[in-house]
Amino acid sequence: MRVEYIQPFISSLQNAFQMMVGCTPQRCGLRLCDGQCPTHEISGVIGLSGRAAGMAILSFSPELALRATSVMLMCEATEVDSDVVDAVGELANMVAGAAKAELEEYELSVSLPNVVIGRGHQIRFPSNVTPICIPFETEFGPLTLEVGLTDLRAPVGA
Amino acid sequence: MRVEYIQPFISSLQNAFQMMVGCTPQRCGLRLCDGQCPTHEISGVIGLSGRAAGMAILSFSPELALRATSVMLMCEATEVDSDVVDAVGELANMVAGAAKAELEEYELSVSLPNVVIGRGHQIRFPSNVTPICIPFETEFGPLTLEVGLTDLRAPVGA
Repeated sequence: MRVEYIQPFISSLQNAFQMMVGCTPQRCGLRLCDGQCPTHEISGVIGLSGRAAGMAILSFSPELALRATSVMLMCEATEVDSDVVDAVGELANMVAGAAKAELEEYELSVSLPNVVIGRGHQIRFPSNVTPICIPFETEFGPLTLEVGLTDLRAPVGA
Repeated sequence: MRVEYIQPFISSLQNAFQMMVGCTPQRCGLRLCDGQCPTHEISGVIGLSGRAAGMAILSFSPELALRATSVMLMCEATEVDSDVVDAVGELANMVAGAAKAELEEYELSVSLPNVVIGRGHQIRFPSNVTPICIPFETEFGPLTLEVGLTDLRAPVGA
């Protein structure tokens, strides 16, 4: 995966959080993952397919997931329930949806989002894929963006 | 999701296990999930998109994941490592790939598979999607197939 593919995901994540959650996640690094990207307790996962195949993961601390749900649904979310699943899934969907529009040469479409819940869960990519992991900080807790994408287009000249 | 959409996933799962793992998973039920589908410790997750959007999950007991890896990679897998991630991801990819060929009216393509690892993890769908959950038994331990798919085609007459 080429590093420049990550930029549309970073900007769409920041836009989605500004618009939907009222905060601006601050990047605190960028790295290629060796399969041990830090994952928080609640992760939104969404597939991408077309002329590339991939997966994007947004991983939230519980505090941030509850805060995002409270703002998005105009309620007081206090436990990880189906409202939190819907809010985290919708944020994953918005981030992937906006990023794919900027990666138009891959003609990507998005799957349904799923939300993984569990302390200490790991989400791993196949060993032949090197995802890129971007940790963020927000005023309500940490957030991680992880994206792995494999180009399926025929090589030039093939 | 209409119940008949699940049949291609069931038959492709049974074919993939017969061919790749040398065992035939036996169905022990079918049910619509209320978001609490039983999940085992290692889950392969793969997105589907096209004229429908969805996600398919194959959830393995550790014993079954290790056995499948040992047979597929002709090695003696004894711990959950990147070989197990690759084997579980490849089974998810095979099942979704064969099922999409039988659901050709949806022109589906598949994302990269991801593998979720963690005791007690849950994988949840958005609340407006009712996935179908099929538990299986194998001689090496239990297995669950879960599929949620939303039709994105315009309704007839629209």
